[in-house]
Amino acid sequence: MQSAAGRCAAEFLGACILTGVVIGSGVLGADLADGNDAVALLANTLATAAILYVLVSVLGPISGAHFNPAVTLVSALRGETRLAIALLYAPLQIAGCICGAMVAHAQFELPLLQAATQVRAGPAQMLSEGVATFALIFAILGGVRHRPQAIPAIVALVIAAGYWWTASTSFANPAITIARAMSDTFAGIRPADAPGFIAAQFVGALVAWRVGAVLFAEEKAG
Amino acid sequence: MQSAAGRCAAEFLGACILTGVVIGSGVLGADLADGNDAVALLANTLATAAILYVLVSVLGPISGAHFNPAVTLVSALRGETRLAIALLYAPLQIAGCICGAMVAHAQFELPLLQAATQVRAGPAQMLSEGVATFALIFAILGGVRHRPQAIPAIVALVIAAGYWWTASTSFANPAITIARAMSDTFAGIRPADAPGFIAAQFVGALVAWRVGAVLFAEEKAG
Amino acid sequence: MQSAAGRCAAEFLGACILTGVVIGSGVLGADLADGNDAVALLANTLATAAILYVLVSVLGPISGAHFNPAVTLVSALRGETRLAIALLYAPLQIAGCICGAMVAHAQFELPLLQAATQVRAGPAQMLSEGVATFALIFAILGGVRHRPQAIPAIVALVIAAGYWWTASTSFANPAITIARAMSDTFAGIRPADAPGFIAAQFVGALVAWRVGAVLFAEEKAG
Amino acid sequence: MQSAAGRCAAEFLGACILTGVVIGSGVLGADLADGNDAVALLANTLATAAILYVLVSVLGPISGAHFNPAVTLVSALRGETRLAIALLYAPLQIAGCICGAMVAHAQFELPLLQAATQVRAGPAQMLSEGVATFALIFAILGGVRHRPQAIPAIVALVIAAGYWWTASTSFANPAITIARAMSDTFAGIRPADAPGFIAAQFVGALVAWRVGAVLFAEEKAG
Repeated sequence: MQSAAGRCAAEFLGACILTGVVIGSGVLGADLADGNDAVALLANTLATAAILYVLVSVLGPISGAHFNPAVTLVSALRGETRLAIALLYAPLQIAGCICGAMVAHAQFELPLLQAATQVRAGPAQMLSEGVATFALIFAILGGVRHRPQAIPAIVALVIAAGYWWTASTSFANPAITIARAMSDTFAGIRPADAPGFIAAQFVGALVAWRVGAVLFAEEKAG
Repeated sequence: MQSAAGRCAAEFLGACILTGVVIGSGVLGADLADGNDAVALLANTLATAAILYVLVSVLGPISGAHFNPAVTLVSALRGETRLAIALLYAPLQIAGCICGAMVAHAQFELPLLQAATQVRAGPAQMLSEGVATFALIFAILGGVRHRPQAIPAIVALVIAAGYWWTASTSFANPAITIARAMSDTFAGIRPADAPGFIAAQFVGALVAWRVGAVLFAEEKAG
Repeated sequence: MQSAAGRCAAEFLGACILTGVVIGSGVLGADLADGNDAVALLANTLATAAILYVLVSVLGPISGAHFNPAVTLVSALRGETRLAIALLYAPLQIAGCICGAMVAHAQFELPLLQAATQVRAGPAQMLSEGVATFALIFAILGGVRHRPQAIPAIVALVIAAGYWWTASTSFANPAITIARAMSDTFAGIRPADAPGFIAAQFVGALVAWRVGAVLFAEEKAG
Repeated sequence: MQSAAGRCAAEFLGACILTGVVIGSGVLGADLADGNDAVALLANTLATAAILYVLVSVLGPISGAHFNPAVTLVSALRGETRLAIALLYAPLQIAGCICGAMVAHAQFELPLLQAATQVRAGPAQMLSEGVATFALIFAILGGVRHRPQAIPAIVALVIAAGYWWTASTSFANPAITIARAMSDTFAGIRPADAPGFIAAQFVGALVAWRVGAVLFAEEKAG
C-alpha cells in the first residue's frame, strides 16, 4: 500500500511512536538514574536509536519514514516527494509527535499536555541543532546514494551520536521540537526556545542538501 | 527439521532461554548496580535484546520464533500458523518460560519458584503493556512485509525501546508474564497484577493485527 | 590463505586479541566505575561483544574463528575440523589466551602473570558455565544451519547476553578460563575453581552438540 | 563523484565530523556523569562507534573513508591509494580533525583552541596505542579481504573495543591525536605526549600491514 492515505498514516503513526519513545524513555531514565544524568541520557539514546531502526525499517518502504519536516523539505527540494504530499506530511508529523507525547505522559500518569520549562537557549545550542540536523540529512543523502539497505542503521546511529555530540542533545526535527515544548520532562524544551531550534534545524538541513548535492552526485553518463 | 515436534521443541527451548536471560540479567543487574536502577535496567535491556536477536535468528526458520502466545494468536488469525499448531505452541511457551525462570533462579541460588511481590498495577501500566505489545506485533508485521532478513534485529530493538519507553518495562508477552509472576526479583510482577497485563497485551496485539492488515497489505494484482 | 599454518596463526592471534580485550576492559572498567560493578560489567560486555564481532568476521573465513577448545571439540565431532587440526588448535588457543592476558597486563603496568584470587565456586556457578557454553554452541550450530552471514553478530550477542544472564559471567571457553586464572583482575578466576568451570563448559558443549544435531538437522533428500 | 576534489572533501568533512563527535561526546559525558568516568567513557564509546558506522558507510565509496594518516599510509603501501592522493589526504585529515575540535568547543561554549593538560605518557600507554592501531588496521585488512560489506561495522566495533581494552583509550589515529592535543577536555592529550602516541600508532599500523599481507593474502591462481 503506497496510496497517499497509507503514506500519511505511516508518517502520523511513525512520528507518534518515535516521540512516545523519546519522551517516555527520558521520563523513565531520569526517574531511575538516581541523579546521574549521563545514565539517563544513555537510556534515552538507546531507546531512541532502537525505535528509529525499527520504524525506518518497516515504514520506510511506505512513506519514506521521514517523521520530520526538515527531511520532507529536502526530499521535496530534491524532487523525490511531490509538493502536495509534502504539504500533507508536515502537519501530520507535528500532530503525530504531539500525540506521541500525550501517550507517553498517559503511560507515566503525567498531565497529557504540559508547558516545558527546560531552558535550551543561546547560540551554542542553536549551532548544535544546526550541526545535528546537517549530520542527519547528510547521512540520509549519503545512505540513499551509497548504501540504501543500511539506511535504518544509519539514521539510528547518526541520531545516537548526535545525542552526545551536541550541546542540544540533537532534536534535529522541527515536529518533535514542537511536541517536546509540550513536555515538562527530561526531553522537554521551553516553548520560547523552540523557534530558535527550528530555525537552526532548517538551516542545517538546507546546508546538508547543498553539500550532499555535490558530494553525493550521481556520475553523469558520458 | 520443521516437523511439528521440532517446531514445538524450538518454541519450548526458545521461551526457556529467553526467560532465563530476562530474569537472570535482572538479578545480576540489580545485584551489581549499587542501587542505580537505571544501570540495572540498561543491563537487563542489553541482555534481553541480545538473546532475542540470537534466538529469532536460529529458531525463526524452524518454528517462527514466537515464544509468545500473543504472537502466535496473530499468526493464527493471519492464517500463517494452523490452529492445531497454535494450540500446541501456547502451553509449551508457558512451560518454557517457567522452566527458564527456574534455571535462572538455580544459577543464582534462589528458590526455584517464588511468589513475586513487585506491584505493577493501574491503568497507566496496563496502557503501557497494550502499547508495548502493539509496537511488537506492528514491527513484526511490517518486518515480515518489507524486510524479512532484518526481523531478528527488529524484534530485539522494538523490545529494547519498549523496556525504556513504557511504564511497565514492556513485558509484551503473556507467557513470560506468567513466569515473571513466579520470580520475586527485579523482573517480577505480583501474581494479582498479571491478569491485567495479559489482557492488555492481547488487546494491543489485536489492534496491531488490524492496523497492520491495512498498512502492510500486499498490493493486489491488477 | 587457508593452509594449516595460516589457520593456526589465526587461532593464536584471535585468542590473544580476544583475551586482551576481555581482561583489559575488565581492568579499565573496574578502575573507572567508581565502585559500581554493573557499570564495569557493561563496559566489559560491550568491549567483548565488539571484538568478537570483528574477530569472527575477519578470521572466520580462515580458521573458523573458534578461539575455544569447546568449539573445536564440537567441530571435530561433527567432522568439520579434522582431528589433526583440532589437536593443533587447542594448545594454540590456550597459548594465545595466555599471551593476550600478558599483553593486557603490560598495557596497564601490572605483573605479566598473576595468580587470580576471585572466588567463583559452587554448583550454581558450574551450572551457569554449563548453560552459557550450551547457549554459545547451540547458537553457533543454529547460525551455521540457518544464517551463516549473521554468525559474527550471533556469537557476539550470545556472549553479551551470557555475561549478564549467568552467575558466572559466561566464560564459556576453557582456554580463556586458563588465562583468566592467571589474571588477578576483574575478569579473574581462582586457579582452584578453573577445573570445575572447564568441566562444566565441556558438558554444556556436548549437550548442545546433541540437541543441535536433532534440532538443526538438514532435511533428508527423499 | 570520485574526483580528487570529491575525495579530498570527503576526507576533510569526515575527519571533522568524527573529531567533533569524539570531543563533544567526551565533554557532555564528563559533564553529566557525576564523577563516574566509566559512564562518561561508555557515552564517548557509543557516540564514536555510532558516527564511525555512519561515516564509513556514506563516505567509504567516495574516498575510502580513511580520516586517518595511518590508514592512508598502509593503503598507499598496498598500492590502493596513489602517492599523490595520499599526500593530499594527510594534511586534510589533520585540518579536518582540528576543525572538528573547534566546532565541538563552540557547541559547548569553550575556547576554540586549547592546550590539553591530560597526561598520557609512558611505555604502557605507547604500547596501548601500538596495539590499538594494529587492531584497527588488521581488522580493516581482514574486512577488505573477507567481508567488505561489513567494514562500517568492523571499524566502529574495533574502535569501541579499543576504547576499553587499552590504557590509552585507543586514539589509533595521528590526525585525531593532533586535534586532541588542542582540546583540554575528557578526550584531550598533553601536547608533549602526542609524538609518542603518533610514533606508536605508525609502528602498530606497519606491523598490521605485514601481518595482514601474510594472513589475508589472496590465493594465487594456479
